[in-house]
Amino acid sequence: MSRARRTREQQQEQTRQAVREARLRRAGDAERLRAILHGADLPLVVDELERMNTRQRATAFRMLPRDSSVRALQMLEPAVQAELVEALPDAQARLLVAELDPDDRARLLDGLPMDLSERLLRSLTPQEWEATAAVLSHRPETVGRWSTPRLVSVSQEATVADALRAVRADTGDAETVYAVPVVDAEHRVVGVVSLRRLLATDPGRPVHEVMREPISVYASDDQEDAARVVRDHGALAVPVLDDDHRLVGMFTVDDAMRVLQIEEAEDEARAVGRERLDRPYLTTSFLALARGRITWLLILIVAATLTVNVLDHFEDQLQQVVSLALFIPLLIGTGGNIGAQAASTMIRALAIDDVRPGDVFRVMVKELTTGLTLGVALAVFAYLPAQFFTESRVALVISLSLVVVCGLAATAGGVIPLVARRLGVDPAVVSAPFITTFVDATGLVVYFLIAGAVLGL
Amino acid sequence: MSRARRTREQQQEQTRQAVREARLRRAGDAERLRAILHGADLPLVVDELERMNTRQRATAFRMLPRDSSVRALQMLEPAVQAELVEALPDAQARLLVAELDPDDRARLLDGLPMDLSERLLRSLTPQEWEATAAVLSHRPETVGRWSTPRLVSVSQEATVADALRAVRADTGDAETVYAVPVVDAEHRVVGVVSLRRLLATDPGRPVHEVMREPISVYASDDQEDAARVVRDHGALAVPVLDDDHRLVGMFTVDDAMRVLQIEEAEDEARAVGRERLDRPYLTTSFLALARGRITWLLILIVAATLTVNVLDHFEDQLQQVVSLALFIPLLIGTGGNIGAQAASTMIRALAIDDVRPGDVFRVMVKELTTGLTLGVALAVFAYLPAQFFTESRVALVISLSLVVVCGLAATAGGVIPLVARRLGVDPAVVSAPFITTFVDATGLVVYFLIAGAVLGL
Repeated sequence: MSRARRTREQQQEQTRQAVREARLRRAGDAERLRAILHGADLPLVVDELERMNTRQRATAFRMLPRDSSVRALQMLEPAVQAELVEALPDAQARLLVAELDPDDRARLLDGLPMDLSERLLRSLTPQEWEATAAVLSHRPETVGRWSTPRLVSVSQEATVADALRAVRADTGDAETVYAVPVVDAEHRVVGVVSLRRLLATDPGRPVHEVMREPISVYASDDQEDAARVVRDHGALAVPVLDDDHRLVGMFTVDDAMRVLQIEEAEDEARAVGRERLDRPYLTTSFLALARGRITWLLILIVAATLTVNVLDHFEDQLQQVVSLALFIPLLIGTGGNIGAQAASTMIRALAIDDVRPGDVFRVMVKELTTGLTLGVALAVFAYLPAQFFTESRVALVISLSLVVVCGLAATAGGVIPLVARRLGVDPAVVSAPFITTFVDATGLVVYFLIAGAVLGL
Repeated sequence: MSRARRTREQQQEQTRQAVREARLRRAGDAERLRAILHGADLPLVVDELERMNTRQRATAFRMLPRDSSVRALQMLEPAVQAELVEALPDAQARLLVAELDPDDRARLLDGLPMDLSERLLRSLTPQEWEATAAVLSHRPETVGRWSTPRLVSVSQEATVADALRAVRADTGDAETVYAVPVVDAEHRVVGVVSLRRLLATDPGRPVHEVMREPISVYASDDQEDAARVVRDHGALAVPVLDDDHRLVGMFTVDDAMRVLQIEEAEDEARAVGRERLDRPYLTTSFLALARGRITWLLILIVAATLTVNVLDHFEDQLQQVVSLALFIPLLIGTGGNIGAQAASTMIRALAIDDVRPGDVFRVMVKELTTGLTLGVALAVFAYLPAQFFTESRVALVISLSLVVVCGLAATAGGVIPLVARRLGVDPAVVSAPFITTFVDATGLVVYFLIAGAVLGL
């Protein structure tokens, strides 16, 4: 490790230590801690705060310098944010909430108990109240909830000099000034001009000559779709429009990154069948953890009952050749793994529009071929150990079954997400239980049918 | 759906259609297609290009307007990018490559055959050649590979007016001008000042009075770590330093988003045991798909052999009570699911620093409690159907086993990722096979021990 990096890690450890000490509010150390926390790296401070209980967190938070505390509050997980604001004295909570951007404020108030939320809303200035209410008027999970009405825009009749004046006149109020929307008389967005372009252009030129075609989103758009637009275009901010194409806000790249982070956590949680944690792990109760996992386990155990049913049907054959039972976990485990691999590839490909439901035939052919190829490879590989545990005819049954099960599992894993999307269901939600059930049940039927044919049962 | 959104979807379909037609190069339609493609949404165009074969893609690409084509090239998947550049006539390839930013160019050249890459490098101007070589000197997967040496910086003696002049003088060459690094005589970064701040400040003031503490990264830092720094601070760009703290480039938010997208795809692929696809699904061959999945399947099938071994050991008991075999898939399936839920929660918590290896005891207690709670719930739920298929003493064995297996599986799922991290291994890589093996093997041992005790086998 380079010396530069070691120095940085020492500084980080010092910050962490300072935050941990701050939760105890040792009076004598207050000055020293304040000094360290003054220049501290805020994401580190936020990480430490999220590891504390409610009381300690409030104590530590109050030792942060004023302007760091507003930014730290914005960075906390929403559930933790709400807890913290509840734990602070009313006067401090009011000051903090007043300094938030309207969209951050709206998301925070949403998570607070009704009476506290109303008390805080009432303490705002009329302008701030209005801006917050505008954000709250949009449905949750839409980009409207992330767009701020505090913005700088210019009319299409303005000159470059006018636009620069508008940017300068904005004393830090707007969330972004780097992409300036150009609007017509009805407040419809006709273009966007970057601050960089404004600076590089002759001030006398009209803005409509230097603006670009706007990339914009509608306030009612899904937050994830809008965040992808920002990412795919590499934009710093995009205008947010109402359904009459009028400008209602700006959606900035830092909010887009946060949306993608939230959605990623959600997708990944769904893929393994659990709820997303709304708060840091260490401060989540075991009951909340259990609640977040039980639904999927119940669905999967109901599905597993189907497997019991299939096996029950073949109990006679099992009785005759008990060694068939030894390989059931291997067979359905492998099928399940192959199905999960195919499904996860497909869920991602759908999400990034690599594949569409109409491609189902191309996908089916490709997955069947892939699955059979994998099946042959695994069958060859598994034949020898199988022979070690049982007679060679049973080993043959296992190898043949592996080929068929792999082909079926890959095809099912590839097709089920596409069918789900076509039916308007989230592919990540349905794929796991459907594939497990399908692969387990058909895999066992295939296994015993092949066993019946080869062993003459 | 609102009218606004319907209109947009029609425009999108028109763009897709135009790109599809462009691949056939119908001479008569060229003018109409060019007109549509001129204002087209580039991410849509790129999506369509990625669904074509190499020849069609090159034909369609050549119908794009000049400046869209550079941006479209930058947006393509790296493997597809390289294919496309190879398929284009040399003169056009040279023109395109000359217009890329140095970091994009370096990543592209990295994926090309050596002779083509050298030919293209040689056609660059000396300055461009040097800038590209600087990026290529950093190790892959580091942020140095994503940082551009084309930047605007100002000396700490400069005034705000000097800084604004430097920004204006930069005629679109730098990748970003919104965060301007302030350097000392040794070219060490002493601060950063935002363009917004520069515009809002009296031009006569020295920049060192208005700059902020810099948030910076080292060129040798892992690309994902650096991208998280950008995201967590909501920064538009951060200075990239060499090990002597000297400024070597800027890392911008759009590149950070791209890094996070790549790393997310990688993590998610590893979590289900497959390789990340380096190219769009539809243009990936079945052999490449199979190759990306086989390693994990082989590891898991070796692990499954352990399960066969355990079952072999209990073959006598199975012979006596064949109905025990019926519930093996249900039992180890449930254990596997619970283990996967716990592990995926923990892998994520580690990644975002919610949990550290030192928290292993807190995690163990929490997961054991959660697992036993889930086990009791599932045992009650599964008792009745189990009784339906078998006698009530066997149903009791199943219920008791579920409680123990769930407790074990959740604990293992919680602890294994922490141990992996402590040992310096990627938790996402080792967790799945270890947990499956552990849960399958111990689950079966528990099952047959309980069966032995309850049924007196």
